[in-house]
Amino acid sequence: MFTIAKTEATRGLWPVSKAPLAEPGQGMVRIDVLAAGICGTDYHIYSWDAWSSARVKTPMTIGHEFVGRITAIGEGVSGFSIGERVSAECHIACGACRFCRTGNAHICENTRIIGVDRPGAFAEQVEVPASNLWRVPAAIPDAHAAIFDPVGNAMHMVTSAGVTAKDVLIVGGGPIGLFAAAIAKAHGARTIALQEPNPARAAIARSLDLDLVVNPREPGSVAEILALTRGHGPEVVLEVSGNAAALNAALDIAAPGATFALLGIPAGAVTLDLGAKVVMRGVRLLGITGRRMYETWYQVEAFMLKNPGLMDKVITHILPATEFARGFALMDEGACGKIVLDFANISGGRLQ
Amino acid sequence: MFTIAKTEATRGLWPVSKAPLAEPGQGMVRIDVLAAGICGTDYHIYSWDAWSSARVKTPMTIGHEFVGRITAIGEGVSGFSIGERVSAECHIACGACRFCRTGNAHICENTRIIGVDRPGAFAEQVEVPASNLWRVPAAIPDAHAAIFDPVGNAMHMVTSAGVTAKDVLIVGGGPIGLFAAAIAKAHGARTIALQEPNPARAAIARSLDLDLVVNPREPGSVAEILALTRGHGPEVVLEVSGNAAALNAALDIAAPGATFALLGIPAGAVTLDLGAKVVMRGVRLLGITGRRMYETWYQVEAFMLKNPGLMDKVITHILPATEFARGFALMDEGACGKIVLDFANISGGRLQ
Amino acid sequence: MFTIAKTEATRGLWPVSKAPLAEPGQGMVRIDVLAAGICGTDYHIYSWDAWSSARVKTPMTIGHEFVGRITAIGEGVSGFSIGERVSAECHIACGACRFCRTGNAHICENTRIIGVDRPGAFAEQVEVPASNLWRVPAAIPDAHAAIFDPVGNAMHMVTSAGVTAKDVLIVGGGPIGLFAAAIAKAHGARTIALQEPNPARAAIARSLDLDLVVNPREPGSVAEILALTRGHGPEVVLEVSGNAAALNAALDIAAPGATFALLGIPAGAVTLDLGAKVVMRGVRLLGITGRRMYETWYQVEAFMLKNPGLMDKVITHILPATEFARGFALMDEGACGKIVLDFANISGGRLQ
Amino acid sequence: MFTIAKTEATRGLWPVSKAPLAEPGQGMVRIDVLAAGICGTDYHIYSWDAWSSARVKTPMTIGHEFVGRITAIGEGVSGFSIGERVSAECHIACGACRFCRTGNAHICENTRIIGVDRPGAFAEQVEVPASNLWRVPAAIPDAHAAIFDPVGNAMHMVTSAGVTAKDVLIVGGGPIGLFAAAIAKAHGARTIALQEPNPARAAIARSLDLDLVVNPREPGSVAEILALTRGHGPEVVLEVSGNAAALNAALDIAAPGATFALLGIPAGAVTLDLGAKVVMRGVRLLGITGRRMYETWYQVEAFMLKNPGLMDKVITHILPATEFARGFALMDEGACGKIVLDFANISGGRLQ
Repeated sequence: MFTIAKTEATRGLWPVSKAPLAEPGQGMVRIDVLAAGICGTDYHIYSWDAWSSARVKTPMTIGHEFVGRITAIGEGVSGFSIGERVSAECHIACGACRFCRTGNAHICENTRIIGVDRPGAFAEQVEVPASNLWRVPAAIPDAHAAIFDPVGNAMHMVTSAGVTAKDVLIVGGGPIGLFAAAIAKAHGARTIALQEPNPARAAIARSLDLDLVVNPREPGSVAEILALTRGHGPEVVLEVSGNAAALNAALDIAAPGATFALLGIPAGAVTLDLGAKVVMRGVRLLGITGRRMYETWYQVEAFMLKNPGLMDKVITHILPATEFARGFALMDEGACGKIVLDFANISGGRLQ
Repeated sequence: MFTIAKTEATRGLWPVSKAPLAEPGQGMVRIDVLAAGICGTDYHIYSWDAWSSARVKTPMTIGHEFVGRITAIGEGVSGFSIGERVSAECHIACGACRFCRTGNAHICENTRIIGVDRPGAFAEQVEVPASNLWRVPAAIPDAHAAIFDPVGNAMHMVTSAGVTAKDVLIVGGGPIGLFAAAIAKAHGARTIALQEPNPARAAIARSLDLDLVVNPREPGSVAEILALTRGHGPEVVLEVSGNAAALNAALDIAAPGATFALLGIPAGAVTLDLGAKVVMRGVRLLGITGRRMYETWYQVEAFMLKNPGLMDKVITHILPATEFARGFALMDEGACGKIVLDFANISGGRLQ
Repeated sequence: MFTIAKTEATRGLWPVSKAPLAEPGQGMVRIDVLAAGICGTDYHIYSWDAWSSARVKTPMTIGHEFVGRITAIGEGVSGFSIGERVSAECHIACGACRFCRTGNAHICENTRIIGVDRPGAFAEQVEVPASNLWRVPAAIPDAHAAIFDPVGNAMHMVTSAGVTAKDVLIVGGGPIGLFAAAIAKAHGARTIALQEPNPARAAIARSLDLDLVVNPREPGSVAEILALTRGHGPEVVLEVSGNAAALNAALDIAAPGATFALLGIPAGAVTLDLGAKVVMRGVRLLGITGRRMYETWYQVEAFMLKNPGLMDKVITHILPATEFARGFALMDEGACGKIVLDFANISGGRLQ
Repeated sequence: MFTIAKTEATRGLWPVSKAPLAEPGQGMVRIDVLAAGICGTDYHIYSWDAWSSARVKTPMTIGHEFVGRITAIGEGVSGFSIGERVSAECHIACGACRFCRTGNAHICENTRIIGVDRPGAFAEQVEVPASNLWRVPAAIPDAHAAIFDPVGNAMHMVTSAGVTAKDVLIVGGGPIGLFAAAIAKAHGARTIALQEPNPARAAIARSLDLDLVVNPREPGSVAEILALTRGHGPEVVLEVSGNAAALNAALDIAAPGATFALLGIPAGAVTLDLGAKVVMRGVRLLGITGRRMYETWYQVEAFMLKNPGLMDKVITHILPATEFARGFALMDEGACGKIVLDFANISGGRLQ
């Protein structure tokens, strides 16, 4: 079968032909992949940065955001049938630690990740634990169903902060920031400003009909945000850039009592004026990782069902899986929103 | 009347004799002070550090934590009587901004502070707005009633974090940290560790019968905290030291998903490993300022009524107001818990 | 000046000509009314039911939902100018009780209501406390600005329950239920079903493009709600009918763990299967009264700014104030959504 | 082995000798029972009331609150060892429904209960799923460890309502009410009143050193509760009696905005003045069932570790398991707090 794998400990990803998967083990199912999204994590592995070269063992089939159809069911699995269309949570939590036992599996101490620690979904077939499956309603098209995972990151961030009736600033217009903007809109934010220096991404943000899209490198962008928020500054900041300067700039203009949801991962340590900007102003900084299992998934499903048009605007490319290199090249330039790879066409099928 | 004032723009505080206060204005009441606590803020003004020399205009009678009896009532005030014993919130919020109008007066944009921006309570008499008064139940002794304000800071921090059934680490054993420890105990924390390098303060902490009191400068202190928390690290960190190194050390050992309530104000900018320690571990950092008006006051009252013994352990000195210089000298050494000044004895009275 | 008043202790309301208001007192402002909404409470007073005949003292100018322009400002008022367009919270809370002091003024023990306990806004002029004013952004038209109050009731109900991503059932399609439906939509509910027997009101509900509008008296309506919710039943029930049978029917089909926000006031005592339907299924029943001061007002403002089209669909009639009798006749039949009275045209003005 | 079983479809329970359990199945463990608590549910089955006669199939070994030592481990179980001391959650949730998947397994739609739907723990051996086990710290004695389950019911009720700094009324002084009182005390309630007509139970409540214990049948009891709460009435009501009259009486005196946690199950439908007492006063009624899995268990563990003395006061009897009939006779009279059966002594062992 066709797979996309990290075979060399260097920049790049390569097509690898592999034998089909064996029958699934106890508690596992085998899925024929229909579509899979390219995640920032995949891009890190492609780039072979410090994090990925320390974590990923080659050779490794990557990819972890996907939708497909169940083709085989292991022992001890109940409640699923051959042919069902499913997505899956990519974090395989242990189920036994105190976080898993209290509804906090997203911070499980023993998590293993599909496409990072075990063979992934950039392949015609993938094997995953049945307990991680998410059955997808028929009304959600394949290209949307493939990306519950990153939309879930954005959803986790937005719902943790609480945006309804609030002035919201989104720092960073990559796919997660764009989905966060779309969700904030669907959840009744008062105003939504998004800042992004890349013109291609800013253009996608503009297509979402937000209240304001600015280039933070242009003089006047701060004044525009302040004007939009009637001089008050944002009450909610959704930080997806991982850029320390941008975070500090947001702290400078945020309203007292503001909530920051931090999802972007800074490259190194970050220096903050914690006393004046956080303590004395009653500001909250919330670290956001993964998705609430599975509260976030229900929320994403509701969002996708009601807002297919917003989804379509953020998904800018659906490429044949065999042309994955083009997808990563687009990400090199930032000339894209979300990119989905079509695995159905390998076998002559079509995405719904 | 006797007052304690900042009269020179240099280190120190001086006794100043002033004329008695005139009749209170519209909405104001005049109070004969019985007792007043020395706050860290008072110590900053005494030391004449960067913050206080920029903010306080000399001459200024300082002091803002107090209890006294109403002796005159201005026009437009209802619901209070001459002779009632009251304390008062020292933050005079505007009542009209969007924070005041939504139950968030502690981050009012127009706050003025008694004893900082207007004449304070280190005086035989003080004038305050009736809307800031807190009527004190008879069962609470004067020395406790004088310090609703700092106990309120600690209460705001503890209730914002949520300590019940949690492993709690308190970073700093000054009065706020000690009160926080006492409150965490009264609210059902699972374990309470407190770290404090000053032996005198550590001794006070030990008198509260916490689970662990450690000197963070001693090797092994981290191991002791980890052992107390069954290897997991604290789930709640109450940061009152303002020490950046201590904050980073706490981030190193805190459990995933931990909540940090930050009340201590670092001297300058703070460098944090925000990505690895906060974002990827789902940690929350909550800036804490002032007291919730007046939810926190109800909570403090309940705590004081049930835990007079804990209060007495943290209040290490009750000094005649005229001996205030001794109080500040004790604070120079850190050789004290909370210090209360007795103003009742100036007129031959006695604290209850 | 023209007013609409309860002058006789019997069914009806009558036009009464009065002298213009005197200069406003301490802390008060005088407002020239532009528009005012007819509330269910006004209808109760019109009908002279048990509640209103016990509470309202004749003669009384009624009306409490309004917008107007400030024409005079009393002593002690700051922050407002002649000519500003304002609405006002109709509950005049005491500001001193423990509810007012903890952000819960909506359950103040000493509330007095405009148009019920003191002269109301169905008049060319009304006097209200400055602390109750709400400055209205220019982008909100007069007819919307007049009804912050009832939209606020709906908002308080919706936000207390939490509808985002949830299956929501609204029991009752009067103005509050219709606004609740519109808000639930704007806040990202997964599905919204509304039940209402009156065909005219059901038609208005249908115009909001909800997922389902049913007549609860028709066989099959329950099955339709269950089908919409994939067999699970609603997770959130917004009860605005005050109908005990409807409440019990909703308890029968609600999902385990469901939240009921109860705003409708049953005529008498209600019999519930509390053990099986509430206790054993972990259901919550939340009594909703008034509006959070003033959190709800900020939320309503955000909603109105983003959703003028939904507002316009629920406001079915804007009548000249002098034709108020027609408004009450429409309410007799239930042949209307929200009715707004135009007071501007009395002086030859026009609503914006 | 010795077991206590329902063998006849009539009032009573009988000792039954059975063969030892076979090796545990996939995912299961076998436990030698040390001690087990008699629950109200066991008493219902003993009494053979409407609920139990409809639900329980005879013959059935009953009992579901217990502690014991693991003696055999089935396939697929990891993380547990022979000899470990464990208790277990008696609700076996499905793990796959939307409630289980969102941290709400306590309202799982497919729950099966140990000792009700499958053989229970009033036996020398019991088999339970490994996923339901709770490892017990050595510092918790057997008699306490046996009753995590009912203390968990009380904990779930107390934490759902939120008692810290609040005036709390507990309606009913059976074991759950008594544990709730003890927990409310440990969590910093401002005042705790408990009402209970049975003098034996009231005496146990008094031993907990609450603020007030009253007999609701005595004139003056309401006045005492109001006096304790400074005329305001309770802010939190924990209803464990299932008595409709008592619930209505509590609604009559509760403060506006009060929270009721309802755990007691009324015998039939309940008639409430929902409009005046709940809707118009902003009161909340929260149905409480089971325990949060497993947040509640962590909370109970923390409570037991810190408050062994309070636990010992509520556990009034530890009886040899073979004398179970005496335990049920004590419950007939209500002449007891919590009763624990000692199964260790059957084999000559001793409780720790």
